[in-house]
Amino acid sequence: MPIRTGRYVLTLPSGPVITGSAAVVGKKEGEGPLGQEFDHIFTDTTMGESSWEKAESALVREAIIRALAKASLSSAEIDVIFSGDLLNQCIATTFGLRELDIPFAGLYGACSTMALSLAMAAVFADSGAANNAIASTSSHFASAEKQFRYPLEYGGQRPPSAQWTATAAGAAVVSKSGGGPRIEQVLFGRIQDLGIKDANNMGAAMAPAACATIADFLRDTNTKPTDYDMILTGDLGAVGSKLLIELMQKQEGIDISPVHADCGLMLYSLDEQDVNSGASGCGCSGSVVCSYIMKRLTTGALKRVLFVGTGALMSPTSSRQGESIPGVAHAVLLTSTGRE
Amino acid sequence: MPIRTGRYVLTLPSGPVITGSAAVVGKKEGEGPLGQEFDHIFTDTTMGESSWEKAESALVREAIIRALAKASLSSAEIDVIFSGDLLNQCIATTFGLRELDIPFAGLYGACSTMALSLAMAAVFADSGAANNAIASTSSHFASAEKQFRYPLEYGGQRPPSAQWTATAAGAAVVSKSGGGPRIEQVLFGRIQDLGIKDANNMGAAMAPAACATIADFLRDTNTKPTDYDMILTGDLGAVGSKLLIELMQKQEGIDISPVHADCGLMLYSLDEQDVNSGASGCGCSGSVVCSYIMKRLTTGALKRVLFVGTGALMSPTSSRQGESIPGVAHAVLLTSTGRE
Repeated sequence: MPIRTGRYVLTLPSGPVITGSAAVVGKKEGEGPLGQEFDHIFTDTTMGESSWEKAESALVREAIIRALAKASLSSAEIDVIFSGDLLNQCIATTFGLRELDIPFAGLYGACSTMALSLAMAAVFADSGAANNAIASTSSHFASAEKQFRYPLEYGGQRPPSAQWTATAAGAAVVSKSGGGPRIEQVLFGRIQDLGIKDANNMGAAMAPAACATIADFLRDTNTKPTDYDMILTGDLGAVGSKLLIELMQKQEGIDISPVHADCGLMLYSLDEQDVNSGASGCGCSGSVVCSYIMKRLTTGALKRVLFVGTGALMSPTSSRQGESIPGVAHAVLLTSTGRE
Repeated sequence: MPIRTGRYVLTLPSGPVITGSAAVVGKKEGEGPLGQEFDHIFTDTTMGESSWEKAESALVREAIIRALAKASLSSAEIDVIFSGDLLNQCIATTFGLRELDIPFAGLYGACSTMALSLAMAAVFADSGAANNAIASTSSHFASAEKQFRYPLEYGGQRPPSAQWTATAAGAAVVSKSGGGPRIEQVLFGRIQDLGIKDANNMGAAMAPAACATIADFLRDTNTKPTDYDMILTGDLGAVGSKLLIELMQKQEGIDISPVHADCGLMLYSLDEQDVNSGASGCGCSGSVVCSYIMKRLTTGALKRVLFVGTGALMSPTSSRQGESIPGVAHAVLLTSTGRE
């Protein structure tokens, strides 16, 4: 049963377990430094579908099916699935999950969705509301470009601060019992908005939310950055990561640089893959956490990872209306089963 | 701590309490049969804002502030807010909640969002994950028409099966303790899709989901329709309500007609207000449940209401790509405090 720790952290005493997780990605992601980590790489990013939106639906469904297989569970054994994506009305998720026949709680957290869905699944598993829950999310470079920016055929230029939406999906089965990495604590973030208006600089828009969430988490749990092997942000990219480290130092007096990592800086080789400031999209942290991170938590190579998913809560319409970009960040403390 | 009852129902033994709720609506809704029930009627549906999207944000914020006041709580006493809406990337919600400084878990459930958010808030309150949580949602006729259909200035015609998106928001504070209507059980629905493709007939697309959820709920709890004062669907409208009653009878052998009501048939006068098949939009069930229904549960005039929020999980993009319309329905059992 969840216990409130400090003002914002929820401690989950039963330690819900990630009994299976899977990440599937596109060609470009497969060619990046984490290529060996993924469960499957689709070299044809249409996935054989007739639209980019349907391709993204196929991507998230594939991640879920593989996560279920790794947890040795059928969809009939899942009590609830928490999932969402970036497309208008979350159609990647709703059409992707349509045939699974699992109770569906739709989420919207933009690129924070993997952390939000893991936090929800963990609270449900810890409280007994679910024996097994799924957390999942997806993004697709082509469906995102089409919706948020320009048609691919237009060949629009991108400023250095822009990030590359990952073609990727991640899914994790969170269970009341079993073997695997644990979710020990979660924190639902508050919306932060420091007035950034540049939709080509999402990292800067999301950094204040990451800063608030990390500071809240450390304060509520009375811990310091070096108590974690890694404080892993979702997809701040190069610009946002630098800003986060500065904000943490100047506003909070906390140096997270020794343990900070960012999924947006891990998915691609920034030198070789022409992705400007790094990766973004729900599938960025979704695929990195559900592969590389979970594997190392399982072996014990990583013992305590504070995963802080970050989301920019704007739309093309709000940006056209001159609005700034609100951000949110949700935190999930992932720990190795084998920790002392 | 939530207890699973049958396959899909969660029983909440502590009986989370709705300590405050509020509904605010636009001019047309204020002129309807429930006009006296609402907390506030905005005769200028721009709300003094410069865009319809910003007007919708103002609407949901107003509902939340009024619900907080009625619960005698400040935003600092709220542990988490569950909210979502129909706009792309849920901007009515994210911009509406931006200044409230409350931990934010974004939802996407289309028109089922009031039921989804109430169910989430109730599970969190029952499990101890929150002492106080807010469930809220909104819709606005003009922002929805602009996004989903035609510019208002175009004056497009609507077929008889079409529904009218409500300009309305509802918010409820769900607490671990206190006085007010209780949430005794919840059910998260599974996506249903019988192949309906007509985006002007959402009621028909959502009826199969309502049918599955009601049948699951009655089966799992071993109850019959007459055990409830009301089985209240979200916004099936005239066409969808008729279809639901037929589906329940033919597929499940259950006659819900003596106790069935639909928020989409309650908000407007179908004879006098030119709304074709009735009301729709997240704010339809949001405003009806957070005013009329909660008031009658508080006085005891209604004792047991099974509220089944219904959502159509498509987008204009999926419809243009020839896809059918998946539906989902979430159920919340609301009971009077004063029941024997």
